[in-house]
Amino acid sequence: MVRVMDIYIALVHHPILNRDGGVVTTAVTNQDIHDLARTARTYDVAGTLLVTPIAQQRALVSRIIAHWRDGEGAQHQPKRAPAFERLAVVESIEEAARYIEGATGDRPELIGTTARVEGATRSYEDQRRAFGERGGSALLLFGTGWGLPRSILDACDTTLPPIEAVAGRNGYNHLSVRAAVAIILDRLLGARDPRTEPVQ
Amino acid sequence: MVRVMDIYIALVHHPILNRDGGVVTTAVTNQDIHDLARTARTYDVAGTLLVTPIAQQRALVSRIIAHWRDGEGAQHQPKRAPAFERLAVVESIEEAARYIEGATGDRPELIGTTARVEGATRSYEDQRRAFGERGGSALLLFGTGWGLPRSILDACDTTLPPIEAVAGRNGYNHLSVRAAVAIILDRLLGARDPRTEPVQ
Repeated sequence: MVRVMDIYIALVHHPILNRDGGVVTTAVTNQDIHDLARTARTYDVAGTLLVTPIAQQRALVSRIIAHWRDGEGAQHQPKRAPAFERLAVVESIEEAARYIEGATGDRPELIGTTARVEGATRSYEDQRRAFGERGGSALLLFGTGWGLPRSILDACDTTLPPIEAVAGRNGYNHLSVRAAVAIILDRLLGARDPRTEPVQ
Repeated sequence: MVRVMDIYIALVHHPILNRDGGVVTTAVTNQDIHDLARTARTYDVAGTLLVTPIAQQRALVSRIIAHWRDGEGAQHQPKRAPAFERLAVVESIEEAARYIEGATGDRPELIGTTARVEGATRSYEDQRRAFGERGGSALLLFGTGWGLPRSILDACDTTLPPIEAVAGRNGYNHLSVRAAVAIILDRLLGARDPRTEPVQ
């Protein structure tokens, strides 16, 4: 029997491009944590990993997670708790991969995302099908700031294409990472009108 | 020749349900404004209308819009300006409809969205097709807080179904409105792998 993949997402705060193309570390934001936790839980993602090399920020994230999962937040807003159960914080993409290997027994396939047109290797449709057919685990990487650097995308097993509106409508693509995560999870894992499922 | 519809979105702060089912007015947030402006511009939406009956909040939104469209924000972050050009603030859903009628000459079709399963009248696929085929204008209504009340959804011409992950995977649906707007615009206006476009 084919096993559905264990799908994880990571919000990467380092290494990240800034507006000048330099590599920086971005700050963790409370809003990102809440939005990603809720979106990921809605699409039944196995885990959401916040990646930052800054120990103080990891400590901050851990406190936020504990507040909403077990603390006052869980009492105040009980529907938020299930979203925070699958959140963890790690110091690097490599540690994220090891975390998943520890949880699933599989080294995850690394799937990069980018708003730049640069060598996408798999369509959303093919990735959606791969999730349904293959075993193993996968980690979708999302960049903050001005996105993931080329070196990280090159090290991924697969890169998904930029999100686009219906062809030819527009030339603007500056989504927030919160919106990009939501759209990409919906393209890969969202329910479809049965008529639009491609015929194999 | 078929004219593509003028599609607008509204973020509604009143009337809105609170967690107890009461009708309240929610606060405008800076994060919502930025995320919706960027998402709407990426999908080439004709306009994003922030709906609040509170005059002080409308004044605040107007200042935020001016800052990013024409002021210091436009110089600091030039890519944000195009997203803010299509933003406006109105005091009610009715005023939003009149605004669109003034801009397009058409009374917009009102399309409600909801996370609750309650009488959806049109699938995403059918709505996507309707946008491509029909003339006129449309206004997609998004609720803040615990969503749009039944009375507003009943007054809409159409209601879209709740967003779901692949059937049977999950029972959790508590997306942020920022994520819901992104997913719904992508379902209705996003580029598709050609293989998934339904055969007519």
